[in-house]
Amino acid sequence: MTLRVLGVDPGLTRCGYGVLDAGIGRSASLVDVGVVRSRHEDTLDIRLLEIARGLEAKLEEHAPDVVAIERVFAQNNTSTVMGTAQVSGVAVLLAAQRGIRVAIHTPSEVKAAVTGSGRADKKQIQTMLVKLLGLDAPPSPADAADALAIALTQIWRGPGPVRLDAGGKARTSAQAVWAEAERSARRARDTSSSRF
Amino acid sequence: MTLRVLGVDPGLTRCGYGVLDAGIGRSASLVDVGVVRSRHEDTLDIRLLEIARGLEAKLEEHAPDVVAIERVFAQNNTSTVMGTAQVSGVAVLLAAQRGIRVAIHTPSEVKAAVTGSGRADKKQIQTMLVKLLGLDAPPSPADAADALAIALTQIWRGPGPVRLDAGGKARTSAQAVWAEAERSARRARDTSSSRF
Repeated sequence: MTLRVLGVDPGLTRCGYGVLDAGIGRSASLVDVGVVRSRHEDTLDIRLLEIARGLEAKLEEHAPDVVAIERVFAQNNTSTVMGTAQVSGVAVLLAAQRGIRVAIHTPSEVKAAVTGSGRADKKQIQTMLVKLLGLDAPPSPADAADALAIALTQIWRGPGPVRLDAGGKARTSAQAVWAEAERSARRARDTSSSRF
Repeated sequence: MTLRVLGVDPGLTRCGYGVLDAGIGRSASLVDVGVVRSRHEDTLDIRLLEIARGLEAKLEEHAPDVVAIERVFAQNNTSTVMGTAQVSGVAVLLAAQRGIRVAIHTPSEVKAAVTGSGRADKKQIQTMLVKLLGLDAPPSPADAADALAIALTQIWRGPGPVRLDAGGKARTSAQAVWAEAERSARRARDTSSSRF
């Protein structure tokens, strides 16, 4: 059975998503990649609803086992950071509402996983994704590429995703046990349903 | 027909809510007030789901005409600001999914509306809420009181809620005037606060 990961690079104007299936060894195959957009001239409620609907459509379409999301830091104090955080909250909620596991990765973790350097630029990430996923062209825009990089990071970090709360605290052993039970239940359910 | 407002003071550990019905003149009557909690030891997905379920229950129970939410600022760079922003995104989404209007108010706007001073402390807000709503005791905890204050601000600002996008860009010229006033207030506040 294949592990399917949906990576999310949260953003209010462009929210990147990338879906990968884990292959043998460290390989992974591209399932879907793109961005969900909202219009800058719309109000926040309309924008969050647009992004949520786009992400919900992808969750329904691809039924991922894990949703991996890039962590947003407050110290990235740009004018967009609050919108980005709000979208990340929405993405986490949509996964949680469907009983899909959520994993959070920091940007430097993702860069290090994909390029070997925690300070890689977007061009480097795109170049490595072409090689690692055997693509014809770099995924574009950068938000879509970032979402794929997050999904790839999740696959490489193994079956037990690192799940952190907002304060960066790792989950407790009780939660680990619960998560393992949930995984087993999902596997049983997935096996019984007609998946390829 | 009475205008009913549900105010939300977003927070991951305690998310305050307060429901008010607008009365004649500037009066308002208390319908419900409290907090939705999540446990610090749970992971972010579980916590956001708990908060969302609590808020959804209140939206269903009270069917408000408007949801008024306190704006979160990135410069309040505490360890909890990202969780607060994520909860605010969730609250906005839940209202938008139900076609309920969303209004965003800044903390200083709320303080000014309720106490006459944009720099009022929590005690002052609680004292004024007792007087203005004819309560027997101050609403507690402070998150619940803040949510009531946000709802009251919304009622007093009239039927047309001020709706801003995450970038803080105003939509109409009337809102532009208000936004300029807000900017001035913020400049005053930023100058007075010690930045680190």
